[in-house]
Amino acid sequence: MTYFEFDAPTIIRTKRDGGRLSDAAIDWIIDAYTDGRVADAQMAALLMAIVLRGMDRGEIARWTAAMMASGELMDFTDLPVPTVGKHSTGGVGDKATLAVVPVVAACGAAVPKASGRGLGHTGGTLDKLESIAGFTAELSNQRVREQLCDVGAAIFAAGQLAPADKKIYALRDITGTTESLPLVASSVMSKKLAEGAGALVLDVKVGSGALVKSEAQSRELAHTMVELGAAYGVPTRALLTEMDCPLGATVGNSLEVAESCEVLAGGGPPDVVELTLRLAGEMLELAGVDGRDPAQTLRDGTAMDSFRRLIAAQGGDLSVPLPIGAYSETVIAYRNGTMGNIDAMAVGLTAWRLGAGRSRAGERIQAGAGVRIHRRPGEPVVAGEPLFTLYTDTPERLGAAMAQLEGGWSVGDTRPALRPLIIDRIPG
Amino acid sequence: MTYFEFDAPTIIRTKRDGGRLSDAAIDWIIDAYTDGRVADAQMAALLMAIVLRGMDRGEIARWTAAMMASGELMDFTDLPVPTVGKHSTGGVGDKATLAVVPVVAACGAAVPKASGRGLGHTGGTLDKLESIAGFTAELSNQRVREQLCDVGAAIFAAGQLAPADKKIYALRDITGTTESLPLVASSVMSKKLAEGAGALVLDVKVGSGALVKSEAQSRELAHTMVELGAAYGVPTRALLTEMDCPLGATVGNSLEVAESCEVLAGGGPPDVVELTLRLAGEMLELAGVDGRDPAQTLRDGTAMDSFRRLIAAQGGDLSVPLPIGAYSETVIAYRNGTMGNIDAMAVGLTAWRLGAGRSRAGERIQAGAGVRIHRRPGEPVVAGEPLFTLYTDTPERLGAAMAQLEGGWSVGDTRPALRPLIIDRIPG
Repeated sequence: MTYFEFDAPTIIRTKRDGGRLSDAAIDWIIDAYTDGRVADAQMAALLMAIVLRGMDRGEIARWTAAMMASGELMDFTDLPVPTVGKHSTGGVGDKATLAVVPVVAACGAAVPKASGRGLGHTGGTLDKLESIAGFTAELSNQRVREQLCDVGAAIFAAGQLAPADKKIYALRDITGTTESLPLVASSVMSKKLAEGAGALVLDVKVGSGALVKSEAQSRELAHTMVELGAAYGVPTRALLTEMDCPLGATVGNSLEVAESCEVLAGGGPPDVVELTLRLAGEMLELAGVDGRDPAQTLRDGTAMDSFRRLIAAQGGDLSVPLPIGAYSETVIAYRNGTMGNIDAMAVGLTAWRLGAGRSRAGERIQAGAGVRIHRRPGEPVVAGEPLFTLYTDTPERLGAAMAQLEGGWSVGDTRPALRPLIIDRIPG
Repeated sequence: MTYFEFDAPTIIRTKRDGGRLSDAAIDWIIDAYTDGRVADAQMAALLMAIVLRGMDRGEIARWTAAMMASGELMDFTDLPVPTVGKHSTGGVGDKATLAVVPVVAACGAAVPKASGRGLGHTGGTLDKLESIAGFTAELSNQRVREQLCDVGAAIFAAGQLAPADKKIYALRDITGTTESLPLVASSVMSKKLAEGAGALVLDVKVGSGALVKSEAQSRELAHTMVELGAAYGVPTRALLTEMDCPLGATVGNSLEVAESCEVLAGGGPPDVVELTLRLAGEMLELAGVDGRDPAQTLRDGTAMDSFRRLIAAQGGDLSVPLPIGAYSETVIAYRNGTMGNIDAMAVGLTAWRLGAGRSRAGERIQAGAGVRIHRRPGEPVVAGEPLFTLYTDTPERLGAAMAQLEGGWSVGDTRPALRPLIIDRIPG
């Protein structure tokens, strides 16, 4: 017990008892936690109190600012090109970044994209890109700036940005304090605002495979983040998009890179194409770039050219075949009918069990593990046809993965009711 | 993120979302936390969820049992004397144990008393006794048994009892999770039931200097603990006693030992005497010992003899003068009148600032630091007379201590309204 002006137990008790954290208290505790004067246990107790008591908009804004201030703030306002950022709250099979970034770059805006690695059932953009031979996400700031000018994009490890968030995020993961609007909003926005883009488009996922399951909560999260961006003078816009069902036809690192390449080549699953073009359109509009039609860049190969330049600039070699799990098992249709809903969480956990995801930060993952979905919801199914193929390098994982997938899909007689992919748009 | 049958995040989320913890989940997490498989941060998040969501009686009973089972269980049922335990939830100037234990021993019951050290504004019985030259509380179990037979009492460090509670208690102290009925009740009862006494009397403090401030909450805490004792077949009874004002006329380690000796010599402040005799009476009744009048043991010197034997058995030398702070400052009455309420928390913090208490576990304290109260609430005051004397070995502490005491007392024209010392009795 200590009785100084600021001390962790007093701040924790204030929030525990439903009080409001002052700006000074927030600044103090984020700073003290980042440099180790406040213990993990103290921050964990405070986070749980925040989950259960909430924070008002002013507290969220200050918490975000304090986490931003814990690290480096990138600034690209002096670059000759407009910059625009993109963030997804994370889902299953969500490879949109891989196609959106080159499309936007091909249209004339530059995208500085700090990305992370996956944990649990959701994948991370860096894990996906690292399935490309030689690709590195460890870029210096100077290198990021050069790439934005030369290639129009850089996808890099968030490393120096908002280290307070990095530490708190890891703590939330093990303490059951991930699902909280104030904590999710401040985590996302502290990193994205530190990333320095001139505008920002958010893809807020809704559904079983999303961090926030309900549409109402996702909508509130989107509004909170859009307001946070505006408060920092960064025009911000959000799309609410469907995540009850995996995006596209693949879940897993190299599988998703391959699918993104299909989209960049003018093909690919229609939902991935639709999401890519909608996000790219919003980003270009917000960046004030018009003239080029994003869809045209997929047809004429300029988006693919952008992607190749981006990967090459970061050391990646697309001529090396992408890895794929050496062992596989296929789920076969037991009847004729129509594919029903496919549960995003079930597929995400299946991919995780196959080795595509981590149980804890830092764990090695399998680039070639994952799930290919042969029949998507609403498509006709014929008995005996393959529905899913599961890939892994470690065959002993197949049993648990097959069991995990069971019950996550069904074949019926009627077309399932499907939500539109783009549920809503929250303009800034 | 892990997906095993029991894992900390899942248990934390269950309580966070208002669910009930199963017996198996409680057993698992207490065990896993005690041996380090569950991190401090995870237990801290769970504790905060318990503070805000509560636990039902069944969960509290199981949590208590799991903490008991983490360590040694003492058993004195084979001793030739009846045993009875005593516990106070902690207050300011609460030296009752020092007089109660020898009174009960003098009347023919044996008291195994596991005690702790103080933290923050409340003192600890072991800290007080250690102001006696040579006294040790580190007794082997065999030694405790022998002393119960030979001397009728042993006051020892809780060491091996309920190590899970010890670890959780230290964590609660730094994470703002002390004030919670389920956590207080299970902490107290896990230690007291492991202590092995045949019956148990609880002194539940109510007021500004108590852990639980409101009478309603203290009453609920008392009922919960009495029921927990009964559930384990240990007849348990509680007194609710007043702690708005410090008990007696001294606060601080050696000062309180000296005051207890006055009580044992047949004198001392009337409130300390009253509490001592009420607690001793309840303990003797519950232990089934009648015949001797506790008050008589104070008059005829047999309680003092018991105390001397107890202290001598544990290495203490009462012929060495008790230490007293080398520096002092006195607060003088500025007017005539009647002493009003004296705030227990203010006096407790004053003693802590003088060096009598700890800011963190393990810190050294000053045996001779503390506060002497010359005029107690309701007593007449004459301008110029001393009201409080503050003692310390470190004179630089006097300024902050004097400032802390200010506002914690007043002199008025009328007698303050005072609650009776014994507010209620909760029979088992």
